[in-house]
Amino acid sequence: MLKRWEQAPVFKELNDRGEEIDSRDLIGSYTVVYFYPKAFTPGCTKECTLFSAELDHFSSLEIAEADSSSAETGFETLVETGARIIGISPDSPETLARFRQKHGLRVELIADPQRKVAAAYHALKENGKSILRSTFILDRWGRVRKSWYGVKVNGHVEEVLAGLREIVGADQAINQQIAYRRARRAISPRTLKRDEVKRIITAAHWSSSCFNNQPWRFIVVDQQVMLAKLHQHLPAGNYWMKEAPVLIAVYSKVKNDCSLKDGRDYYLFDTGQAVALLQVQATQMGLIAHPVAGYDQQGFKELLQIPEEEHLITVIALGYPLGNDVFLSEQHQQVEREPRQRKELGQILSWNQYQE
Amino acid sequence: MLKRWEQAPVFKELNDRGEEIDSRDLIGSYTVVYFYPKAFTPGCTKECTLFSAELDHFSSLEIAEADSSSAETGFETLVETGARIIGISPDSPETLARFRQKHGLRVELIADPQRKVAAAYHALKENGKSILRSTFILDRWGRVRKSWYGVKVNGHVEEVLAGLREIVGADQAINQQIAYRRARRAISPRTLKRDEVKRIITAAHWSSSCFNNQPWRFIVVDQQVMLAKLHQHLPAGNYWMKEAPVLIAVYSKVKNDCSLKDGRDYYLFDTGQAVALLQVQATQMGLIAHPVAGYDQQGFKELLQIPEEEHLITVIALGYPLGNDVFLSEQHQQVEREPRQRKELGQILSWNQYQE
Repeated sequence: MLKRWEQAPVFKELNDRGEEIDSRDLIGSYTVVYFYPKAFTPGCTKECTLFSAELDHFSSLEIAEADSSSAETGFETLVETGARIIGISPDSPETLARFRQKHGLRVELIADPQRKVAAAYHALKENGKSILRSTFILDRWGRVRKSWYGVKVNGHVEEVLAGLREIVGADQAINQQIAYRRARRAISPRTLKRDEVKRIITAAHWSSSCFNNQPWRFIVVDQQVMLAKLHQHLPAGNYWMKEAPVLIAVYSKVKNDCSLKDGRDYYLFDTGQAVALLQVQATQMGLIAHPVAGYDQQGFKELLQIPEEEHLITVIALGYPLGNDVFLSEQHQQVEREPRQRKELGQILSWNQYQE
Repeated sequence: MLKRWEQAPVFKELNDRGEEIDSRDLIGSYTVVYFYPKAFTPGCTKECTLFSAELDHFSSLEIAEADSSSAETGFETLVETGARIIGISPDSPETLARFRQKHGLRVELIADPQRKVAAAYHALKENGKSILRSTFILDRWGRVRKSWYGVKVNGHVEEVLAGLREIVGADQAINQQIAYRRARRAISPRTLKRDEVKRIITAAHWSSSCFNNQPWRFIVVDQQVMLAKLHQHLPAGNYWMKEAPVLIAVYSKVKNDCSLKDGRDYYLFDTGQAVALLQVQATQMGLIAHPVAGYDQQGFKELLQIPEEEHLITVIALGYPLGNDVFLSEQHQQVEREPRQRKELGQILSWNQYQE
């Protein structure tokens, strides 16, 4: 069975008009691929007719607000998925042409006389010959997102449409982790496993960078003695960082990355990218990762023995969230409960030309 | 019914030892909360006994590689979820104490004599009085991740354990979008909806920044005439960007953000963060967003009328992925198919002290 998130098998087969359909051309659109045993039989005719009738609902979906987490950024919109529906059977192109003609079918019909495509999709019964009626939803990357093996035709088209709606809704909403992250300060002192810290750094490390230079460097501090020394170099306002079981010092230097004649030094930009991904990963794992600029650069560098030419760019407090935030100042408690504030989109975005 | 991703209702109630249990203390751990009608009745006794027997399996879960997308970064590990299991019923603390005693129960038992907690969780039958046997999995943020209303006891504990395993597996794996993103160049010229572009910019705009300065600025170019002019200022190696229906110019300046005495200018770092989130969002939506450093700074700035003091930090090619990449140079085709390359973790990560 094909697994969720797996790249769907590739194929090149003829349709009912004798044109070669290359599965690579499905990339970029959501696609429903379904396998049925035989044209003109009652179940298959019904399935193909029902998919044809619903084609327009598949190709432009109304998506309501995806979920409560995206409330701040929610959208209700018509997504032009351009979703295609492709029926595949062992029939010949000629048979399929007559099948389309007789029933006014609107879906793409592909001939798979040798059952090669069906085999690649595991849409065969145990005898290895008969088609196992099956349906797959592929995303714009051509990955399998949902699969049905051993389909019953009754009610099936509706459940596939509901499945597509759910997938498109999740994909097209503001990313869960981006929407949920905020500058939280109520960090539990509970010890964090190094395994989890490593996974967070690994995610950061998958960031893009100029010529793949990977300029970011991380020192993870989890020893009590060192943490206590570092705490001496935090300003009063960052008292809450002293609760964190882990501080991560993020440093880099100009020569770690592209440095262009027109003044663009990418080590800061690319390290920023990595730190953003670090926060995405931590949020997903149920952890607070809060980067700050407030610390004594010299004090931290000396304690951690970071050489002079390196810039300590940010320090990140990392740990489990704490439900009970009474240790925070009243101001900080309040800030955490307010909605996040952002400039209007028009202040940071313009179209085709600079705007004041 | 509680919705997926919703913050679970808060409560403060007594357990069978007469201690007040504050739901805020559940934050930071995965938690199973289940409602049952009445202690000492056969179904409830069975359910509480089975959850007790499996407690250790809930609190330290073996998670296999989460899914195929994380193959590059896969992990198989024992996650100490520290998951707690909390049974809630309308019984008194005294009854619950005898219930625990008699059956050697190991789960937390909470008394909800007025059915307030049950009501908040919608775990009441239509008459508003009888408990509707229900179970919820909460994540470390205290959000509802899975719910069962009208539970049948047989096989239930196993399905909750499977549910927890799935949720923890997804949370603790390397983030889907981070794992799948790469510097893809096979971009389709197909027109992109402004709605989708706006959503991508919105996600970027939710990035963290120094004192929430939000220094990033975006010019989205989607007019053919302007695109054609900009193409004149791309180096030969970035020929593939000419296919993209959208180019995004990302600019900022020193005074948009924190600028500290020790030389840290955060406008580059924070704009990098926003651009990383932009790529996460685009990947989720099934779009390629590929930032480059290769363009003529002066040429681009003049065409887009970006003032002198602004730095054009990166240009992002945005569009639908193209399955057929024959327009790419052989070298680029090959690069896209190779696994992504990263330095060993030990080269970018050290513990408690700088390492060469």
